[in-house]
Amino acid sequence: MHSLHSPHSLQFTAESSSNGMHERDFTVGDVPGVLWSPASGTDRAPLVLMGHGGGAHKKHPSMLGRAQRLVTGCGFHVAVIDAPGHGDRPRSAQDEQAVAELRTAQAAGEPERPIVVPYNARLAEIAVPEWQATLDALQELPEIGADGPVGYAGIAMGTAIGVPLVAAEPRITAAVFGLMWPDALVEAAKRITVPVEFAMQWDDERIPRDACLALFDAFASKEKTLHANAGKHFDYPRFVEADSAARFLARHLGEAVTSAA
Amino acid sequence: MHSLHSPHSLQFTAESSSNGMHERDFTVGDVPGVLWSPASGTDRAPLVLMGHGGGAHKKHPSMLGRAQRLVTGCGFHVAVIDAPGHGDRPRSAQDEQAVAELRTAQAAGEPERPIVVPYNARLAEIAVPEWQATLDALQELPEIGADGPVGYAGIAMGTAIGVPLVAAEPRITAAVFGLMWPDALVEAAKRITVPVEFAMQWDDERIPRDACLALFDAFASKEKTLHANAGKHFDYPRFVEADSAARFLARHLGEAVTSAA
Repeated sequence: MHSLHSPHSLQFTAESSSNGMHERDFTVGDVPGVLWSPASGTDRAPLVLMGHGGGAHKKHPSMLGRAQRLVTGCGFHVAVIDAPGHGDRPRSAQDEQAVAELRTAQAAGEPERPIVVPYNARLAEIAVPEWQATLDALQELPEIGADGPVGYAGIAMGTAIGVPLVAAEPRITAAVFGLMWPDALVEAAKRITVPVEFAMQWDDERIPRDACLALFDAFASKEKTLHANAGKHFDYPRFVEADSAARFLARHLGEAVTSAA
Repeated sequence: MHSLHSPHSLQFTAESSSNGMHERDFTVGDVPGVLWSPASGTDRAPLVLMGHGGGAHKKHPSMLGRAQRLVTGCGFHVAVIDAPGHGDRPRSAQDEQAVAELRTAQAAGEPERPIVVPYNARLAEIAVPEWQATLDALQELPEIGADGPVGYAGIAMGTAIGVPLVAAEPRITAAVFGLMWPDALVEAAKRITVPVEFAMQWDDERIPRDACLALFDAFASKEKTLHANAGKHFDYPRFVEADSAARFLARHLGEAVTSAA
């Protein structure tokens, strides 16, 4: 699905509405994405870019659930793009190899870090300019605008891509991260000064406690908050943290949360 | 102001209403307290016990602000009693000595821990049975009842008293703590199994980071969350954390938050 247009122009390919959200599928060049907006319409509102997790895609239930809070709860726009090799995008031979190695390691109970860290770092190198081109294109829409507030939210692979993105992109002024090894991210984290909310699992069997604390410590942000929840990696309390992230973004992007639920 | 009644009977001494809160001053034996309840009236609602900080008192603005969230936001009752030597209570010679030593240390820029930890541990020994007698008396009120949900919230000295209280008191089923050294509290924390939300300051100049993490780690609770905020001791983001505490208590005491503000 190669676009005939400039890589920076946004093409809407489908639209629908449900549960108070207007959903528009789009492409920017070869990259497919989705833009959720308040169905009630809006003059101009902040935009939140969301990064999905490894093996997921732009319309994964965790993306939909978080978007619902931000769109109907805060009146924001939310955009998600498929990461390289994810969702509607083709997988390269390198992608296939990384996924196969990861499955082998998981099946054998071996550490994932040696595979996930370089795999996600490679995806981030591709994804950061894609996100920047997507943001360029989204800001041409009158309901978003070139000077409106922009936030970012993404855990796990969404953090592996998001940390270098936020470090590189001054238009993003608040970010939610978590659940990722620091190895490839500490240097970028040291360049981030915007408010950050960071989640970790206190008893994470994959990412050691000290590694989580080290990544949180690395952010240069004057305003940053760590949320450490008891439990293992998949005990992450998704709903509580998604609610908290929505309130954090609402505070920093300058709109009131209109619904606590 | 010695009571003529049994130390376990509750005497209301004054009442007023403002901002949607009905305020009743009370005594239980020699201990003065305040009970805030929804002005709209209520059949029966959860009760939150709140512990004030060192040098403060039962109607300190931080207590009033937190009570407002819980009473008008969640429909709860909130009770605070003056800690020994605080508010309307007489100071003993030992209290006077501890306060004088603390002021000397603060003026000289010397560590507060060697004074605060044993001072607060001594107050906790007195305050825990006072809180238990107060809870006995409050549960005789029909709008609270003997089997209703009970929570606790208190940081700093409110944690020094609250951790041994919650460890000793099975009627308390959720607790908010923070900003205190672990020294006198770790053994009691290990006996606490109810959900806990714990706040620390990441760059606290008084309480070392490792000490904060050690106290959080000590709680035996299966469900516990650490909130670590960037900044020094007095940079603690009171309003954000008070909002979060109200939502935490609303989740665990079984009522819906009716207002996010």
